[in-house]
Amino acid sequence: MQDIYQYIEQHREEYIARAQQLVRQSSVAAQGVGVQEASGIVMAMLASVGAQVERLETRGQPVVFGELNTGAARTLSIYNHYDVQPAEPLELWHHDPWGAEIADGKIFGRGIGDDKGDFVARVCAIDAIQHVRGQVGANLKFVVEGEEEIGSPNLEHFAREHQKRLKADACLWEGGGKNANEIPEIALGVKGIAYFQLSVQSANTDLHSALAAIIPNAAWRLTWALGTLKDQNERVRIKGFYDDVRRPSPSDHAALKKIKSSANRMKKLWGFKNYLLNLQGAPLQERLTFQPTCTICGIWGGYQGSGLKTVLPKEAFAKVDFRLVPDQDPAKVARLLRTHLDAHGFRDVKIELLGGEHPSRTPMDSPFAKVCVEAASDVWGVAPAVVPMVAGSGPMYPLGEKLGIPTVMPAGIGYAGMNIHAPNENVRVEDYIAGIKYFATIFERFGREP
Amino acid sequence: MQDIYQYIEQHREEYIARAQQLVRQSSVAAQGVGVQEASGIVMAMLASVGAQVERLETRGQPVVFGELNTGAARTLSIYNHYDVQPAEPLELWHHDPWGAEIADGKIFGRGIGDDKGDFVARVCAIDAIQHVRGQVGANLKFVVEGEEEIGSPNLEHFAREHQKRLKADACLWEGGGKNANEIPEIALGVKGIAYFQLSVQSANTDLHSALAAIIPNAAWRLTWALGTLKDQNERVRIKGFYDDVRRPSPSDHAALKKIKSSANRMKKLWGFKNYLLNLQGAPLQERLTFQPTCTICGIWGGYQGSGLKTVLPKEAFAKVDFRLVPDQDPAKVARLLRTHLDAHGFRDVKIELLGGEHPSRTPMDSPFAKVCVEAASDVWGVAPAVVPMVAGSGPMYPLGEKLGIPTVMPAGIGYAGMNIHAPNENVRVEDYIAGIKYFATIFERFGREP
Repeated sequence: MQDIYQYIEQHREEYIARAQQLVRQSSVAAQGVGVQEASGIVMAMLASVGAQVERLETRGQPVVFGELNTGAARTLSIYNHYDVQPAEPLELWHHDPWGAEIADGKIFGRGIGDDKGDFVARVCAIDAIQHVRGQVGANLKFVVEGEEEIGSPNLEHFAREHQKRLKADACLWEGGGKNANEIPEIALGVKGIAYFQLSVQSANTDLHSALAAIIPNAAWRLTWALGTLKDQNERVRIKGFYDDVRRPSPSDHAALKKIKSSANRMKKLWGFKNYLLNLQGAPLQERLTFQPTCTICGIWGGYQGSGLKTVLPKEAFAKVDFRLVPDQDPAKVARLLRTHLDAHGFRDVKIELLGGEHPSRTPMDSPFAKVCVEAASDVWGVAPAVVPMVAGSGPMYPLGEKLGIPTVMPAGIGYAGMNIHAPNENVRVEDYIAGIKYFATIFERFGREP
Repeated sequence: MQDIYQYIEQHREEYIARAQQLVRQSSVAAQGVGVQEASGIVMAMLASVGAQVERLETRGQPVVFGELNTGAARTLSIYNHYDVQPAEPLELWHHDPWGAEIADGKIFGRGIGDDKGDFVARVCAIDAIQHVRGQVGANLKFVVEGEEEIGSPNLEHFAREHQKRLKADACLWEGGGKNANEIPEIALGVKGIAYFQLSVQSANTDLHSALAAIIPNAAWRLTWALGTLKDQNERVRIKGFYDDVRRPSPSDHAALKKIKSSANRMKKLWGFKNYLLNLQGAPLQERLTFQPTCTICGIWGGYQGSGLKTVLPKEAFAKVDFRLVPDQDPAKVARLLRTHLDAHGFRDVKIELLGGEHPSRTPMDSPFAKVCVEAASDVWGVAPAVVPMVAGSGPMYPLGEKLGIPTVMPAGIGYAGMNIHAPNENVRVEDYIAGIKYFATIFERFGREP
């Protein structure tokens, strides 16, 4: 692979510029901004390496499908997304979120780490292999969707509709990166998610807070309702919520034990005092990997300005996500949540399921996992950490597990300080270049597999 | 009084224009906007009726002190404020909050009802008396402050400093208006208030919500902390909070019984389903009048935009006010709140007391109350409702009770649909004109008292 690595080094400026180009096109699915334009850039990039590109419509944003048919024996499908999280709160960015500026050896921009840089690195890997070897040693099928950050609401239907086209021997998921110990991380599954908006309306207008003695307050109703969802010991109180949680197996425990903890570094990096429940060591890692969550992602109602305003808010809202583990089901969680609120006297709290995804896992002994692990050793010279399931979510279930395709979330261009989903998202330039080498190695190793 | 009433009717356009002039000068103490300019207009208006006007500095906004020395035997002090609530949320206004537009027989604008129209009506009443009779039959001392809507943080100190100057036989408080039954209402006291900002910071950056399994969430911490303050039966759970609550006396109960309920009209007007605890009748009125409250006036943290954002918020905030009744004390409530949060494991929840005021009451049999009651009968031809204490707050304690001055909150220019502290604040033109007549009648009756 040294010839290919050398080619990549020689073309680093060009490959960085490609990632910048895609980041500079904002594409926030939640706000419907720029997504169409970004899909066009993705199509052009795939066409530039000789893929046959189609724009497949869904009920939402289109999926860009790109097939590089090399006549090889084996086929790898590749999942990425061209949409990104909203950039807000804008005032906390030190660089233009859509500028892809380079500073301190990092590329800053919304989506550089999740997931535009990752997609572009894969295209660059193909480009490098083609220039050095003529062609990639495997057939590749890109599935690049535009709604990952809003929970891929249409991908399950898409996958059912295009089952045949999506057939592959393995699936390369969107990539991760190095953990807080600077060890590349490979994951064999994702948690699911059920994301809700809760809302309460208590009157038709905001009122003087003097009336609070006798008139209902939407903010109190919401606060109390939220308080019934999870107790201070982090136990979700919704009846039946834990019924479908699969317990970690002995091999899961063994895999977790091999992972060197980065707990102290994360604590320092993000400035929090203690992990929940004061956990540390194996129980901390086990909780992160195998426990479902219930999270207030946002809450608002009433006066939020400076100083005093004595107002009785007429309405209040919260965004709440549940991260789910096998074999929990987002639709069932929605039913349980409604039943819970009703049973606790909160019929006035409306819920809307904004997005749902199943959890998904690939077995620890999958041969494609071995390819991704060995490729990481080739590039970084260390054994990567292999986690059974990441704490994040994604539509792995409909594209992978449900179609019987072993799916691996490889290492990649990211690192612990990348500020994913947060202000000042960034990727280190050297990690980006190493990521291109890594994907090239996976493609070549996968093509050589018996 | 008919000659004076006639003069007022003949000059209604001029008197309306005066109120519009003051409303058009925004003066939001919470935001530090326009307050100085408004104080200048107030000074000019007082000077226009011959008052000696002084601008008395405080640690915050100045108090405008205007003395109309007529050589009469008795002196009435008059309390108003020239600051107003913030106009936000602006998108819910149907008229410019600073436009003082007239539509459907109403003057719309932030502060027209609370408290600018009320102040201007008093100046107009003096103007009318002077034109018809030559001079008012009492000495008048105006105390017009600029920080009422942020809890009058400097008025207690001001009152101590200017005790002599504030000496009076009675004090006319800022005026109310008609209740939902269209009956003029007179009140002999105000609740106190303790207004806090609560804040929690759990990390130095917003994080991906996948980490919620192990990293603290400021929004959960705040939600849980708030949940310990008050239970769903509306009982404040802070230890010692009710210790100083004075129970209503038999004469209080008797006074409440005379008040015709406007409960159904308020329900219809503001579109809420039921009163708290499903109360009605006398217990409802008693709760409104004599019970302290704990109110979430605002709450915010994390993502508040459209769609999904899977974020673990680094910080969360709430504005919480407590309305206090005799003999509760805002400084003591602040201590109890801190102790409560600490005892419940919420040392991470910071509190800041943004404003505090004592409750205050004047005895039901005060002679000045009789003046205000009889003046209301003169103008409106009905017996006014007399309530022992309003549910709102104000700095009545330092200016009245503490200086031994009987203080009455008279009827005035307002009505139940005035949207006080809310979008589309308004006053009906006819109520405004009647209010001028009412204040003229009070001044004349007060001057004639033995």
